[in-house]
Amino acid sequence: MRHVLGFDLGGTKFAFGIVREDGAVVASGRVETLADQGPAQAVRRAIDGARELLASSGFRAESLLGVGIASPGPLDIARGCVDGSPNLPGWTGFPIAGEIGKAFGLPARIDNDANAAAVGEFRFGAGKGFPNMVYVTLSTGIGGGVIVDGRLMRGANGNAAELGHLTLDIKGPPCPCGGRGCFEKYASGTAIAHRARAALAAGHPSSLAALAGGPDKVTSHHVLQGLAAGDTLAKEIWDETIEYLGRGFAVIINTFNPDRIVVGGGVTAAGDTLFGPLRKKALGYAFPRLAAVCTIAPAGLGGDVGVVGAAACAFEAAR
Amino acid sequence: MRHVLGFDLGGTKFAFGIVREDGAVVASGRVETLADQGPAQAVRRAIDGARELLASSGFRAESLLGVGIASPGPLDIARGCVDGSPNLPGWTGFPIAGEIGKAFGLPARIDNDANAAAVGEFRFGAGKGFPNMVYVTLSTGIGGGVIVDGRLMRGANGNAAELGHLTLDIKGPPCPCGGRGCFEKYASGTAIAHRARAALAAGHPSSLAALAGGPDKVTSHHVLQGLAAGDTLAKEIWDETIEYLGRGFAVIINTFNPDRIVVGGGVTAAGDTLFGPLRKKALGYAFPRLAAVCTIAPAGLGGDVGVVGAAACAFEAAR
Repeated sequence: MRHVLGFDLGGTKFAFGIVREDGAVVASGRVETLADQGPAQAVRRAIDGARELLASSGFRAESLLGVGIASPGPLDIARGCVDGSPNLPGWTGFPIAGEIGKAFGLPARIDNDANAAAVGEFRFGAGKGFPNMVYVTLSTGIGGGVIVDGRLMRGANGNAAELGHLTLDIKGPPCPCGGRGCFEKYASGTAIAHRARAALAAGHPSSLAALAGGPDKVTSHHVLQGLAAGDTLAKEIWDETIEYLGRGFAVIINTFNPDRIVVGGGVTAAGDTLFGPLRKKALGYAFPRLAAVCTIAPAGLGGDVGVVGAAACAFEAAR
Repeated sequence: MRHVLGFDLGGTKFAFGIVREDGAVVASGRVETLADQGPAQAVRRAIDGARELLASSGFRAESLLGVGIASPGPLDIARGCVDGSPNLPGWTGFPIAGEIGKAFGLPARIDNDANAAAVGEFRFGAGKGFPNMVYVTLSTGIGGGVIVDGRLMRGANGNAAELGHLTLDIKGPPCPCGGRGCFEKYASGTAIAHRARAALAAGHPSSLAALAGGPDKVTSHHVLQGLAAGDTLAKEIWDETIEYLGRGFAVIINTFNPDRIVVGGGVTAAGDTLFGPLRKKALGYAFPRLAAVCTIAPAGLGGDVGVVGAAACAFEAAR
């Protein structure tokens, strides 16, 4: 079986792994991105980490098929670099794919992280057998990737499916993307934490501050913990989140008419607390005919989705 | 050269034509839909009209390749019928494609009107040479059709790209689709007329009522007339419309990363009054990297887009 090297660049972590063509992760590792220190140091440390991984796993770089890199968008695919990603300020123009490819002497391609995850889930995960599949990641931000009739929708320059920037409210807060009231401003992990902190600052009684060790330390995970413990504010924040997610997912259904929406990202740690009510809301708000053929399921690749998705893109490029 | 019969079903008109495989309309006609009188009478009269057209043009039905029908969605493509279209209440389940196909002894397929128009514009119109093209129609409602990498995005059951039901404001007015604050509630011809009438009813001074022969008779065309004549209210309504359109089009750009958006429908009669400011707003609100590769152009097929689009789908089905 053949192998590739997959890199998953995120705002906080830069993961990598050796992936087999059946989607299995043979070995993996990660370094901190330290995004605000710029791209050169992060790319250097990820390369070093991957080199050690190859060595310790007994792989030689020249035996691999290629390198895939998943990165937050927008990207300049042709030049292999980030191009204005709100989550990676200062990274625009740095030739990530070029540097990594050169380091290993292998062809390297970069793809939007959510697009790569969509390919990964479609080939190896919860989207297998669903030719019209939308992948949505609920994480620091919200990202998307769309499979149309079995093929990744890349768009004119590889940046399609910025689903976190669907609009929920054109009178809402401005977003670095240029829009207002974007989906991810309401329903991402960051947004959940932000709303909880704002409510605490406004004096809402809640156990969340104690749970987190301070009102400014509350994250979406504390909201989920509070929800499980019966905290009233956590319940309010979560219900709002489900409402926002339901509205956004209904738009996704009306736009793509998918047979499946696969949902990944940190917020899916909520499990049925998320998926039960989300299915009800999203399918209720969408056109009935489109809702009728759409299932909503948790991602199948777990924490490996970035690395496996990047690898899936590398396998596709190598065909 | 080969020919097909194209039908264009709308809420007010039911048009039809004989279309050649280079996209030329050899002959065409139309009847009133009288939508509230139900599907049977309308389909019957359209069939009769098309029969007369064939006879007067010297065509025999059996010499044609097939029939394409463009209809407002959502549809049940497999059963060839409307399925819950807000603009055709009471039509759900009537086998439009079956009845028309039977009448002419030809294979007949039904497609969402905007999807059909997208195929028509991509093959024969302003989308020629743009493999990642979005068609948007600004008419009674707002419809969409998306070409991904040269192929129509149909979705799981042929109902993809309900772009009139992108959300602009989740706290906005409810829409029959199940959502709230849908794009077409703000920027369709109907919405433009509605906002003008509401402003007149609220006592805004304007020449629009006189122009239309009464405040309740104002349409989007009167707003455009008033705009040209320097009417202040018309200017306000139009500026709002451009703002809404710019927001909606930015979402379309972020979602599909198109190389071209082709815009059709009655509202495009505004010409440069529409396209100039719309380009500026839409490209300004979208991610710069995606805006940079996207052009926005008026439809090339004019009033024939429905019939030619339906025909384009029939030609594709016959290949």
